[in-house]
Amino acid sequence: MLRERLHRQLTPGAWPDSGLSPINRVVCVLILLASLMAVLETEPTLRQAAPDLFFAIEAVFVALFLAEYGCRLYAAGEEPRYRGISGRIRYVFSFWALIDLLAILPFFLAFLPFNNVFLLRMMRVLRILRLARLGRFSRAWSALAEALHARSYELLLSVGVAGLLLLISAACLYVVEAADQHEAFGSVPRALWWSIATLTTVGYGDVTPITPLGKVFAGITAVAGIGIIAMPTGILAAAFSDVFQSKDHQPERRHGAGEVER
Amino acid sequence: MLRERLHRQLTPGAWPDSGLSPINRVVCVLILLASLMAVLETEPTLRQAAPDLFFAIEAVFVALFLAEYGCRLYAAGEEPRYRGISGRIRYVFSFWALIDLLAILPFFLAFLPFNNVFLLRMMRVLRILRLARLGRFSRAWSALAEALHARSYELLLSVGVAGLLLLISAACLYVVEAADQHEAFGSVPRALWWSIATLTTVGYGDVTPITPLGKVFAGITAVAGIGIIAMPTGILAAAFSDVFQSKDHQPERRHGAGEVER
Amino acid sequence: MLRERLHRQLTPGAWPDSGLSPINRVVCVLILLASLMAVLETEPTLRQAAPDLFFAIEAVFVALFLAEYGCRLYAAGEEPRYRGISGRIRYVFSFWALIDLLAILPFFLAFLPFNNVFLLRMMRVLRILRLARLGRFSRAWSALAEALHARSYELLLSVGVAGLLLLISAACLYVVEAADQHEAFGSVPRALWWSIATLTTVGYGDVTPITPLGKVFAGITAVAGIGIIAMPTGILAAAFSDVFQSKDHQPERRHGAGEVER
Amino acid sequence: MLRERLHRQLTPGAWPDSGLSPINRVVCVLILLASLMAVLETEPTLRQAAPDLFFAIEAVFVALFLAEYGCRLYAAGEEPRYRGISGRIRYVFSFWALIDLLAILPFFLAFLPFNNVFLLRMMRVLRILRLARLGRFSRAWSALAEALHARSYELLLSVGVAGLLLLISAACLYVVEAADQHEAFGSVPRALWWSIATLTTVGYGDVTPITPLGKVFAGITAVAGIGIIAMPTGILAAAFSDVFQSKDHQPERRHGAGEVER
Repeated sequence: MLRERLHRQLTPGAWPDSGLSPINRVVCVLILLASLMAVLETEPTLRQAAPDLFFAIEAVFVALFLAEYGCRLYAAGEEPRYRGISGRIRYVFSFWALIDLLAILPFFLAFLPFNNVFLLRMMRVLRILRLARLGRFSRAWSALAEALHARSYELLLSVGVAGLLLLISAACLYVVEAADQHEAFGSVPRALWWSIATLTTVGYGDVTPITPLGKVFAGITAVAGIGIIAMPTGILAAAFSDVFQSKDHQPERRHGAGEVER
Repeated sequence: MLRERLHRQLTPGAWPDSGLSPINRVVCVLILLASLMAVLETEPTLRQAAPDLFFAIEAVFVALFLAEYGCRLYAAGEEPRYRGISGRIRYVFSFWALIDLLAILPFFLAFLPFNNVFLLRMMRVLRILRLARLGRFSRAWSALAEALHARSYELLLSVGVAGLLLLISAACLYVVEAADQHEAFGSVPRALWWSIATLTTVGYGDVTPITPLGKVFAGITAVAGIGIIAMPTGILAAAFSDVFQSKDHQPERRHGAGEVER
Repeated sequence: MLRERLHRQLTPGAWPDSGLSPINRVVCVLILLASLMAVLETEPTLRQAAPDLFFAIEAVFVALFLAEYGCRLYAAGEEPRYRGISGRIRYVFSFWALIDLLAILPFFLAFLPFNNVFLLRMMRVLRILRLARLGRFSRAWSALAEALHARSYELLLSVGVAGLLLLISAACLYVVEAADQHEAFGSVPRALWWSIATLTTVGYGDVTPITPLGKVFAGITAVAGIGIIAMPTGILAAAFSDVFQSKDHQPERRHGAGEVER
Repeated sequence: MLRERLHRQLTPGAWPDSGLSPINRVVCVLILLASLMAVLETEPTLRQAAPDLFFAIEAVFVALFLAEYGCRLYAAGEEPRYRGISGRIRYVFSFWALIDLLAILPFFLAFLPFNNVFLLRMMRVLRILRLARLGRFSRAWSALAEALHARSYELLLSVGVAGLLLLISAACLYVVEAADQHEAFGSVPRALWWSIATLTTVGYGDVTPITPLGKVFAGITAVAGIGIIAMPTGILAAAFSDVFQSKDHQPERRHGAGEVER
């Protein structure tokens, strides 16, 4: 009885209403706060101002997430495949349960004699990924996922075209600029750094061609970059248009068709 | 009688015709001119050339806006909830009336012994916000607002996805670049500055990764930035498409349906 | 008879077939070549290599454009409002005839004792504008112009929103950065240079905020820049979608409606 | 019999099923691997670490591609126009067979006494272009190609408008900045480098205007750059929308029409 209610509250898909259950909403807020603390903690000036405070807050969050993890592990028994001890072990190694561990593990790993302080901190920041599990159950997500899925081939192809352009422009600049700027364009992988910054129109400007021919190729690359932005945007716009229209107008259209067939 | 005519002239929603009333058009021009003067006044070379001229022009604008404010306060009595003295006090603290104060207040605040010259100047520039109240009554605005409102969940979700990507790329670069560039990537909040410039494809170039692994992550971030631009653009394009079509074609479609059902 | 044939050949709108008349196609090529020469001539290293050659080529182009101008002036008499001497004078001061003068005038102005060499060269480059007159008669242009015209209010409004954001972000950065970077953010007009580079996602990086609060505002501005790109793109996408569909599918739909009403 | 089976396996259009034949899939992977090796080989630090290894791997790839080339040459005889010796010669000089040579030729050209090491390396990288031939037979490609083809005039026109804006902004900045920054804006071709970086919103920042008037023109150019991105994106979005809808809904619509006409 308690297990069933816990399962309904904790598993986003098991909640009967649309949206998230009250407990999951609280979990969302906790994740956001804990991630914010993890972000702020990386800043040395803040960390050194109150190191004990950060540790205490982290301990509270970890205790809460540990309790949540225990509840999820207990409630998982409601689903047939996670029943029993072998089922619970299967649950622990399921994708989202591993992501949940990100929220707890870094705290305990820090006590190990060998640990990488940077990696532990990143793991703490990445607990924000847990939001993705809960976000997947919003109505907006299904529309976005449907649009991305319906046009996944076209989007992949445009990524492929972008990759081809990236490589060609890097190869061209390698040929014309390598002699003058060996550090920045001395090989195709090095030229790719410039190439990606130009094709995505980011344009850091830390590396720019200096030969006239290199500038001509760079100009062509920059113009091609507009296409690299326009193609996936256009595909997504058309895909969203399809998804929104099929959701909003399908019932009415079906009705109209019925009228005619009568 | 006078109050009713004033109310009709001053309150954009009360004007019977589409568009703005003649008085509100004059107010629009005055706001634009006063904002332009406030912008130009911040430039020291211009201010020092003719300080008295700037003060005189500002005084004229403030006198005009003060008169307008008084008229609005008087005319607000036409609406039941702003009637009487308590209603007028409610009006003074209503959102748009507070924005209107921005046009007048800085002039008088400047005479106080304690004041921040920068904030007062910004308040003078921000009187341009008053245009937003009048702009809300254009036909184009309703189409934009409808599109934004209809897809607000999807747009919020794409903002959420962008925020997630922002944090992940900042955490990655913090891990790989912190040792080499402590000033720029020494914490996640610092790395966010680079991250936001890259994901939005602004790309200042004041901070760029220098380690090979950092450049690989930066390249992935830059490519993800195209998605960050493409997603909201695609959603907006589909939303505008829906709004425009429902506005233009609805009457015809309704007519066509009537033909069939006959 | 000759005048009528000249008029039909030279005036793009008078040509009976779609596209351009043979003579106008030759004129297009001449304009492109003359503009290219004008562009190359501005480069000192090229100009000094063969100054006489550039002058000779320019003289040939001007002779050809002078002959064309004479023909157009003669052929204009076919249209009632340009008939007679007073009509011809009216023609000379019509918009496109003045643009045509750009192709000839700089050559003769150069012989005057007082002249600005930069302005004369720019005028030579701007003869490329003459292509716009001929381009207006392509089918693609009408689709683009229709889409822009149908949504001109929405596009103008998004320009207005962009202008508002531009001013607000410039005012914010002026307030927080003026003390630290007087040269770059010492006034709102100066801050606008940074603001426009950020909101359009150009991001030169010659000027960037250095205070933490300035970076926070800059990040918000950069994210808002995505909206500034997404809004007009979405409006244009929806507008083009409308125009293309009404052109391609209208006949079929009308036919279908006829089937139903039968 | 063998020739027919080879032809069916090697020629993408001759494969009866949708997608690629098993042999062509292997060829795809080989092309990707060989291109990756060619990219890595350009990096001096990697090349010097194991020069013999790179040569050996390259030799294996060239042997495989040589065998593939031979098979394609043999199988081409299945098509009437490539039959016989004269047909085979025609095949060798066909577009895609020449692209195929890119995968083999650089290896042998390297033994010639006179050769450009940069060009040979770029040719090796460009063997990735061979993927384009195989990619053309995916379903996603046909949708993209159809959309691009249907709106090629509009896309070309927007390229033309972009070119015009590019030239005008370069000419303006040449006039106002040439005196102050001779190196960067001393001629229109030089100013084009800045102009293209700004209009495509790449914004390297290696060259920026310093005069107030130059900054005003640059701001206008940057804002125009949004249009340069928005126009082709909008056209592509509308074109994809058309293509996707005609593909998905055509059968249903035809069915519906049949219902009505019954």
